[in-house]
Amino acid sequence: MESKIDFSLMTYTKQQLFNFTKSVFIHCGMNNVDANLAADVLLAADMRGIDSHGVARLSGYVRLWEAKRANMNPNWKIIHETPSTATIDADKGLGLTVAPKAMEIAIAKAKQVGTGWVAIQNSNHFGIAAYHAMIALKHDMIGIAMTNASPLVAPTFSTEKMLGTNPMCYAFPSGNQLPVVVDMATSSAANGKLEIAQRLNKPVPKGWVQDKNGIDSTDPNELKKGGALLPLGSSHDAAGHKGYGLGSVVDIFSAVLSGANYGPWVPPFVSFLDPLKDQPGKGIGHFVGAMRVDAFRPIDDFKNNMDNWITRFKNSKRINENQPVIIPGEPEFEIQKQREQNGIPLNEKVIEDLKSLADKLKIEF
Amino acid sequence: MESKIDFSLMTYTKQQLFNFTKSVFIHCGMNNVDANLAADVLLAADMRGIDSHGVARLSGYVRLWEAKRANMNPNWKIIHETPSTATIDADKGLGLTVAPKAMEIAIAKAKQVGTGWVAIQNSNHFGIAAYHAMIALKHDMIGIAMTNASPLVAPTFSTEKMLGTNPMCYAFPSGNQLPVVVDMATSSAANGKLEIAQRLNKPVPKGWVQDKNGIDSTDPNELKKGGALLPLGSSHDAAGHKGYGLGSVVDIFSAVLSGANYGPWVPPFVSFLDPLKDQPGKGIGHFVGAMRVDAFRPIDDFKNNMDNWITRFKNSKRINENQPVIIPGEPEFEIQKQREQNGIPLNEKVIEDLKSLADKLKIEF
Repeated sequence: MESKIDFSLMTYTKQQLFNFTKSVFIHCGMNNVDANLAADVLLAADMRGIDSHGVARLSGYVRLWEAKRANMNPNWKIIHETPSTATIDADKGLGLTVAPKAMEIAIAKAKQVGTGWVAIQNSNHFGIAAYHAMIALKHDMIGIAMTNASPLVAPTFSTEKMLGTNPMCYAFPSGNQLPVVVDMATSSAANGKLEIAQRLNKPVPKGWVQDKNGIDSTDPNELKKGGALLPLGSSHDAAGHKGYGLGSVVDIFSAVLSGANYGPWVPPFVSFLDPLKDQPGKGIGHFVGAMRVDAFRPIDDFKNNMDNWITRFKNSKRINENQPVIIPGEPEFEIQKQREQNGIPLNEKVIEDLKSLADKLKIEF
Repeated sequence: MESKIDFSLMTYTKQQLFNFTKSVFIHCGMNNVDANLAADVLLAADMRGIDSHGVARLSGYVRLWEAKRANMNPNWKIIHETPSTATIDADKGLGLTVAPKAMEIAIAKAKQVGTGWVAIQNSNHFGIAAYHAMIALKHDMIGIAMTNASPLVAPTFSTEKMLGTNPMCYAFPSGNQLPVVVDMATSSAANGKLEIAQRLNKPVPKGWVQDKNGIDSTDPNELKKGGALLPLGSSHDAAGHKGYGLGSVVDIFSAVLSGANYGPWVPPFVSFLDPLKDQPGKGIGHFVGAMRVDAFRPIDDFKNNMDNWITRFKNSKRINENQPVIIPGEPEFEIQKQREQNGIPLNEKVIEDLKSLADKLKIEF
């Protein structure tokens, strides 16, 4: 869950941004089916209010392609397999297109043996984890997706950026209620939140960042000065070792299990930074899973209990009468509803970036 | 990871405490094999320094048995099954004995189809999650264990205790290094840490608890006055919604998927509090999993990369030269080594409790 603050100068319809995004990927040599899919994943982020992971990243993907670090028509393949598992070499493709396909493989396996799990190596960033996890929902399955990412987070007691914001997502089907979707970076704050504070030049809450010496800081520009993001739970006095543990879990599932790069070797998303030498694996890594609910109990019993769970938590006693208790995933569904009606607000810098991309590639924006 | 502070007045050998614990369970009608297992699980907590989950809880299990809420010789059975999944009805048994058996079932399924996942309903507390997850390690598998627990944690924006400290554990095998074991409550602080502060009558750090009105507090006795524990990440300004999300994931896997009680309906561990009426499920719930590493890639490649991961993180740049960067699980292995040599220190209150248990049951302590 990231940037929800509105810096909009203009709003665009989903269709406008989808068409442009798709054209850009096609310009880069992506085939029509994959360009549809990649645009759908990016727009899902914008629709759900995860503004940092949507079209704001489009030019970044293009630059990775220009630097020959991303392959827009990968010959991805399954390199290892059992009835409930698979490992995929993504052939330097975008996680945007490979991760949904990995999820479909997990779902097919779950149909056969109850659950399916796919580890992916040699990939690039996959957008929002929720897109991939939520594919499972329409099959009455629980969906899981995680990825490692460029190192920005320091382990407890360290000054070194060793882990990405390494998100994990769990999506649970429900009956009449909205599904429960827990989608979270394992750092205290996602980098997108820091970027917002930078634009506003406002201090960030204590517990988000440390300076280059490992001292707590509220300076939103600390990362550029050698500082690091803090793991969920913040410092050691609080519970930062737990966030460090969770980020490690995501790193190991995504990369050590798949054969991708882990820790400080994860290649940077920004093309102006070169990957480290002597990489222990290939590209970045993801991990996805699908679990058939009726492999455990009848789906109707599960959905009835999920609806009851959601209703009971929603109605738990409030601290402030005007602030309802929120179900994980609920804010994103609400933003999506708003943006379906009112369009997607983009901030000035993102619009500038898309316009210059349009100029460069000679595509209409 | 809980109480590591030493309030010891006396130390005991593992064997002394094991023999007593086993005798107590046998007194309660448990068979010899299960009594061995239950004692092994409790002593693993004491050996690993999770003092709140070891023999300190023995009299609590006995009181659950006296209240007829725990069945010491359960006729547990698999009530639903696919090649990679199973659901178990624990017949009111102790999680201490049913969870390791569920893990063995998960491991057997993983041998067949790559991964195995078992949800357990109608159970009682299972001790430390790490015991169960780590069973997978000797099979070169990744082990996962989680459980829900008596409600103590308030969701973000709520004053009501709706979630347990709901721990999750992930255990990853390694080569020459110690395994990576992430075992953590999804609250900011486990209840055991609060109990230590109560004994010392010392304020707790901000971010651990809130008072009955949902206001941040540093009073270690806040829970007794209608307050609640805070989820990992603390308040909403920090990242408490993430801990609330993680606690929800554990609750749903453990109970909604298994058919156990969830949220506020989880029966209290303490026998003097009655379970709520109109329960939606049976007992408390657990969820365990085993994943064969070589279902994804050759085990030697994985272990080499794990050793490299561990070494690199250990050697990441320190904030303070005298405080090494810690690998998840490392402190528990170190305490275990110490206690194997020096015995298990018990605090006065625990010794008193065990002595009065011994008197009551006429078992030598």
